Amino acid sequence: MSQSYDPGAFPPLAVTVDLVLMTVQNGHLAVLLQRRSEAPHKDEWALPGGFVGIDESLDDAAQRILADKAGLKDAWLEQLYSFGDPGRDPRMRIVTIAYFALLPAAELSAPLAARSDLMLAPLDTLPPLAFDHRTIIDHAATRLRGKLDYAPVAFALLPPRFTLRALQDVHEAILGISLNKPAFRRRMIDTGWIEGTGEKESGGAFRPAELYRVKPRAS
Amino acid sequence: MSQSYDPGAFPPLAVTVDLVLMTVQNGHLAVLLQRRSEAPHKDEWALPGGFVGIDESLDDAAQRILADKAGLKDAWLEQLYSFGDPGRDPRMRIVTIAYFALLPAAELSAPLAARSDLMLAPLDTLPPLAFDHRTIIDHAATRLRGKLDYAPVAFALLPPRFTLRALQDVHEAILGISLNKPAFRRRMIDTGWIEGTGEKESGGAFRPAELYRVKPRAS
Repeated sequence: MSQSYDPGAFPPLAVTVDLVLMTVQNGHLAVLLQRRSEAPHKDEWALPGGFVGIDESLDDAAQRILADKAGLKDAWLEQLYSFGDPGRDPRMRIVTIAYFALLPAAELSAPLAARSDLMLAPLDTLPPLAFDHRTIIDHAATRLRGKLDYAPVAFALLPPRFTLRALQDVHEAILGISLNKPAFRRRMIDTGWIEGTGEKESGGAFRPAELYRVKPRAS
Repeated sequence: MSQSYDPGAFPPLAVTVDLVLMTVQNGHLAVLLQRRSEAPHKDEWALPGGFVGIDESLDDAAQRILADKAGLKDAWLEQLYSFGDPGRDPRMRIVTIAYFALLPAAELSAPLAARSDLMLAPLDTLPPLAFDHRTIIDHAATRLRGKLDYAPVAFALLPPRFTLRALQDVHEAILGISLNKPAFRRRMIDTGWIEGTGEKESGGAFRPAELYRVKPRAS
């Protein structure tokens, strides 16, 4: 920033936040979409989003939009990536900061029931989307899939005690592929993220499986 | 974005790109800083950065600033994170998109020699920095250190053939700690990222070590 800056000399520019709220539903990775009520792209599906207020931090804007648009409070949002191609919004130059969360499907059921402009769309059958929101969703899915191997992200979708089968189901849904059961189990044990509880699942399974839990963090 | 947007109703806002260009020098992780020639924070050290042009993508702005401010062409830059706290710039609301690169020290020697306003500062003895640039550098260092364990990032600082000792030196410099030699070597072999070449280092070492290389990517 070696040059002085005259705000009046710059064309209008805005910053928005868009939310990529994903979950697993019926064995498929899915994302929360909102039907736009106004131009541009009126009636098209889009990510929930909004303009960042002038006195609002990016994180605060993301939490406000999460509450206003998706009816959710205090979800853990991770800043994903910023998208700023000049032509991405027909109104003006708008740079958007995308935030991401992976949420249990149950957390989305109340807003989905309450608001007819929201839907949960499986990633493999997305409708046409407004702006560059398809690119943003693809970016989020790629990062999520990449993270599965080195970060304990899938546990966000599981109860505190879970079977290895349930953990594998989550991984398979996120990756969109089937995994080899013995290799998956060995890999999960090797991560050191989980430990057996010594308890078995209830509910009358013929051969009840052991329940695991996430290990308390060392140090 | 459910509300219509009147650009004139919004106070001025701008988007910048700031570059976090890191390397290892004398066994320490270091970052390229530029002395500011103008207010605000005149004469203070800062990351090289600049305003995003209205018709310029974020990536293009980052490459332009890399060439203009740091004298470097076509380095591989990764978008790191966006910083947008309302008070971070005294002039106006400015959201900055930080980009990151880990470069061999040799690539920085030409711009450092050519420009007296640039310096390479070890992270453990940073001078006071303008704006929130200290926060941005800390964020970059944390991500880089976290990535060492699951991504082949350190090889960017090594020649095509390298000893395991040289690889360990890079990891120790980035992490700022000493590593256990046998455990480090085992872990690096286990990653599957590298393979022995069967050749030994030259240069008259008493016990020349084997040279390794990065494995060609599978699939």
